[in-house]
Amino acid sequence: MSPEQEIPSPEKISKKAAKKEASKLEKLRRKQEREQQSEESIRTTTITSLEEEDESFSRNYGDVTIPEIKSTNDSNSGKWREAIEGKSWIDMKNLTKEMIGLEVLIRGRVNTNRPVSSKLGFMTLRQTGGEVSVQCVGIASEEMKVSVKMIRFMKQLSCESFVDVIGVVALPKDPVIGTTQEVEIQVRKVFCVDRVKEEKLPLNVEDAARSKADIQAGKPGANQDTRLNNRVIDLRTPANQAIFRIQSHVQMAFRELLASKDFIEIHTPKLMAGSSEGGSAVFRLDYKGQSACLAQSPQLHKQMAICGDLRRVFEVGPVFRAEDSFTHRHLCEFVGLDVEMDINKHYSELMDLVDELFVCIFTKLNERCSKELEAVRNQFPFQPLKFLPKTLRLTFAEGIEMLKEAGEEVDPLKDLNTESERKLGQLVLEKYNTEFYILHRYPLAARPFYTMPCADNADYSNSFDVFIRGEEIISGAQRVHIPELLEERAKEIGIDVTAISTYINSFRYGAPPHGGFGVGLERVVMLFCALDNIRKTSLFPRDPQRLAP
Amino acid sequence: MSPEQEIPSPEKISKKAAKKEASKLEKLRRKQEREQQSEESIRTTTITSLEEEDESFSRNYGDVTIPEIKSTNDSNSGKWREAIEGKSWIDMKNLTKEMIGLEVLIRGRVNTNRPVSSKLGFMTLRQTGGEVSVQCVGIASEEMKVSVKMIRFMKQLSCESFVDVIGVVALPKDPVIGTTQEVEIQVRKVFCVDRVKEEKLPLNVEDAARSKADIQAGKPGANQDTRLNNRVIDLRTPANQAIFRIQSHVQMAFRELLASKDFIEIHTPKLMAGSSEGGSAVFRLDYKGQSACLAQSPQLHKQMAICGDLRRVFEVGPVFRAEDSFTHRHLCEFVGLDVEMDINKHYSELMDLVDELFVCIFTKLNERCSKELEAVRNQFPFQPLKFLPKTLRLTFAEGIEMLKEAGEEVDPLKDLNTESERKLGQLVLEKYNTEFYILHRYPLAARPFYTMPCADNADYSNSFDVFIRGEEIISGAQRVHIPELLEERAKEIGIDVTAISTYINSFRYGAPPHGGFGVGLERVVMLFCALDNIRKTSLFPRDPQRLAP
Repeated sequence: MSPEQEIPSPEKISKKAAKKEASKLEKLRRKQEREQQSEESIRTTTITSLEEEDESFSRNYGDVTIPEIKSTNDSNSGKWREAIEGKSWIDMKNLTKEMIGLEVLIRGRVNTNRPVSSKLGFMTLRQTGGEVSVQCVGIASEEMKVSVKMIRFMKQLSCESFVDVIGVVALPKDPVIGTTQEVEIQVRKVFCVDRVKEEKLPLNVEDAARSKADIQAGKPGANQDTRLNNRVIDLRTPANQAIFRIQSHVQMAFRELLASKDFIEIHTPKLMAGSSEGGSAVFRLDYKGQSACLAQSPQLHKQMAICGDLRRVFEVGPVFRAEDSFTHRHLCEFVGLDVEMDINKHYSELMDLVDELFVCIFTKLNERCSKELEAVRNQFPFQPLKFLPKTLRLTFAEGIEMLKEAGEEVDPLKDLNTESERKLGQLVLEKYNTEFYILHRYPLAARPFYTMPCADNADYSNSFDVFIRGEEIISGAQRVHIPELLEERAKEIGIDVTAISTYINSFRYGAPPHGGFGVGLERVVMLFCALDNIRKTSLFPRDPQRLAP
Repeated sequence: MSPEQEIPSPEKISKKAAKKEASKLEKLRRKQEREQQSEESIRTTTITSLEEEDESFSRNYGDVTIPEIKSTNDSNSGKWREAIEGKSWIDMKNLTKEMIGLEVLIRGRVNTNRPVSSKLGFMTLRQTGGEVSVQCVGIASEEMKVSVKMIRFMKQLSCESFVDVIGVVALPKDPVIGTTQEVEIQVRKVFCVDRVKEEKLPLNVEDAARSKADIQAGKPGANQDTRLNNRVIDLRTPANQAIFRIQSHVQMAFRELLASKDFIEIHTPKLMAGSSEGGSAVFRLDYKGQSACLAQSPQLHKQMAICGDLRRVFEVGPVFRAEDSFTHRHLCEFVGLDVEMDINKHYSELMDLVDELFVCIFTKLNERCSKELEAVRNQFPFQPLKFLPKTLRLTFAEGIEMLKEAGEEVDPLKDLNTESERKLGQLVLEKYNTEFYILHRYPLAARPFYTMPCADNADYSNSFDVFIRGEEIISGAQRVHIPELLEERAKEIGIDVTAISTYINSFRYGAPPHGGFGVGLERVVMLFCALDNIRKTSLFPRDPQRLAP
């Protein structure tokens, strides 16, 4: 048998190389045929009945034994080791028509298992949560050394078990419904790598993958707590696989753009003395006899990095909030994408970056994640995000004006509540045809003490929030870098200056004007895909009632 | 005046474009000259003495006022706003001979300030921690509207203050010692953006930047606690600037390689019920009335991600250890680079990845960070890391044998202590000429309960450690994915199985054979640069006695 590693992925083959590839596959096919014929001629035993198999039949299937799975190098340690000797696994996504007639080794989860007769069985295997699946056909056959006992073994493989199949790529008589690959595998050998022994799973992947429409039509679904309690099963749905791939791509695009602009990635401590923003909703703990808390944001330390001349920094890391928020958009632990940079003369420099950064992220997601976005859409239908090539900026006062014109009662010097934010999102969409925009010059009273007040009106501040589909995802501002002004601001809102002296002192040794912003990673993915709950975009969510799994 | 944003960075100019660029700069120069002449003709006032300046002189210098720094758009709000109107800052690194004669606007920290006479002053400004610096010359001159009062103002600018200088690029008569740029700036206008008011800084950047050799030769240095207590100043040294750039590049290279191999980046929760590895050195806290702890590693959750079919995952995030370790290589909070992946048949698949990944990281660091490595070397001399294109792998037993041959007393079934690890590192260097190698098949007793035992000898395990310069930086293994075996192993070493039931149950619904490894980011940078203390590679280190800044 030839090693399959020689078969390159068809995806990587350019048209020019396709011909060469075809002839290579043809050679490999002929070689495998010759080897099979020679195996046949060596065979001396004769089988009288498919029911009574001899050694050469029974070696073609079985459970992988524990000694075998422990990374032994000994190919005599068991049937599985013997069967895979010299072979390489190929990804199911690479199983295409070009490979018809070739013998391959694949590994996947049992997705469905349909017995037909004592001599025939159909099993589908899937990889990466149902993104790719292929049908494996077992037919009892003396010539192929596939016994009825092997078909029986195959039929007993429980769903979600991991299985290795060695078989020949073939074109099915009728197109297979419910698999992604157009070819099927005619099983020669089958081994169970990891068997699910539970009689009934606490959650079926199929149920977890159902759309609202299907559930309304009467098919079984799964509620959120069942899903989250059994996250290792829930994560296997196509939509969840896609969500965490999209999340990975958001970070990648975020870093790519910032790195191209000379930002460096830093890591600030999550354990700190005092509370990170002087807030109350912090998790407290004992640190070697000292009173400590978990950082509510990397705010103070990323500013200190700027004072330390790192000039342009970003961080991707956990943020802890002990708030008792039971909404669809709050978590007690989430991933913060944080940016801090020196500015030359105006906080609009920060908004310029937000604009470029997010237009870049959205564009790259649409380009790179089309399959993933479709997988999400199949379960949770949504319209693509509407955004402008140059992001709309409105002042807070302009936003208030729009709300007032629409008959909303809003206080012009207080923060907007969730309801008003949503309403304003609608008005902006109607007027400017965008679901992504920046609202700036927030009332000073609505922002933390370290926010720089506006030059022309101390009721307002050099700050901004950014919205997707009517919900806030980014908060940013120019910071107060003058220690005297910082003390004054802290005192004004009743913060004990001595408690934050480390922070304030950081600015006494020369600090450039600077600012930054913070983004919630889970919110970006949630709102880009118009999902209804942030728990859908957190791998293992933490809320006031959930600390496990 | 023309906006300087039109001047592209000379670094970006190819040889082909250089000619075009020169003509562009020449045009800009002529335009600036014409504008200056026209300004001259408009001027009506006459100055009798440089001591008695009029309005047109006094507008060329001063402190930036608070209203001006608050991002005002009003160019009439002060002298600085007026001076910078229509101008853009350029980075000092872009100041080259090609720009001689052009007027530029730069911002930097005052590095040195040397008064010569009442009419002459020299000041050097630096950017990004001394990496780049330029000399600014102030000469009192009626023609240039530079008064003696302005020279006096310039002389009083304290070190570490941020200053904006508008001036003309010129070639100094004598080469300037102690600056990086070959050109100097003839000051026309100077504004103090942020002034250091402290009489004496708690740490001088110059002292913090001294090498051991200089200190031994009698120059003042700074001890580690003074540095860390004043990290915002300490970070400004060229070596520290370089260290955190190198660290950023380590992460970038780590992610680039993994992304190219279909790994996705995940974030696991840091807040968890119970303790993450059943260990004792955890930080405990109250989580809404529940008992919680901080994750000692993402171990359990990254394995759960594999059970959830994410197949190949990595994470970059904080790791918390409440151990009372006061060594040069332990922190209570550090950045973990974690990897977990399904494996087909052998834990060597993990070592193959470690090999490729780290050879790639080291190679990229040498390529991309040559300047940074030199900056570190200037203060902390070190020899480049010796590593092989294909990483050496030794079994633990082979390592023990080498130690025994060298006369070391070592227990073959216990973990190596730091001393033996260092000794083995020396022996390996002598024999194989590498300071980077993998030691695998560790004694089972030396590894956590979830480590897969070896197939052929249950005294050993499918695990490995990786060493740089005789110190461990990576720990990895194949995991036990069979729930019954996992329970058995936990019981054997006295872990309460019910306390880790969530973890064990994750493997009951089908799990692929898998494994992974964890790396300490700070250790990679420390050992690549042969630094003597891990606190040098942590931005704001946390050890049993340090929780601030």
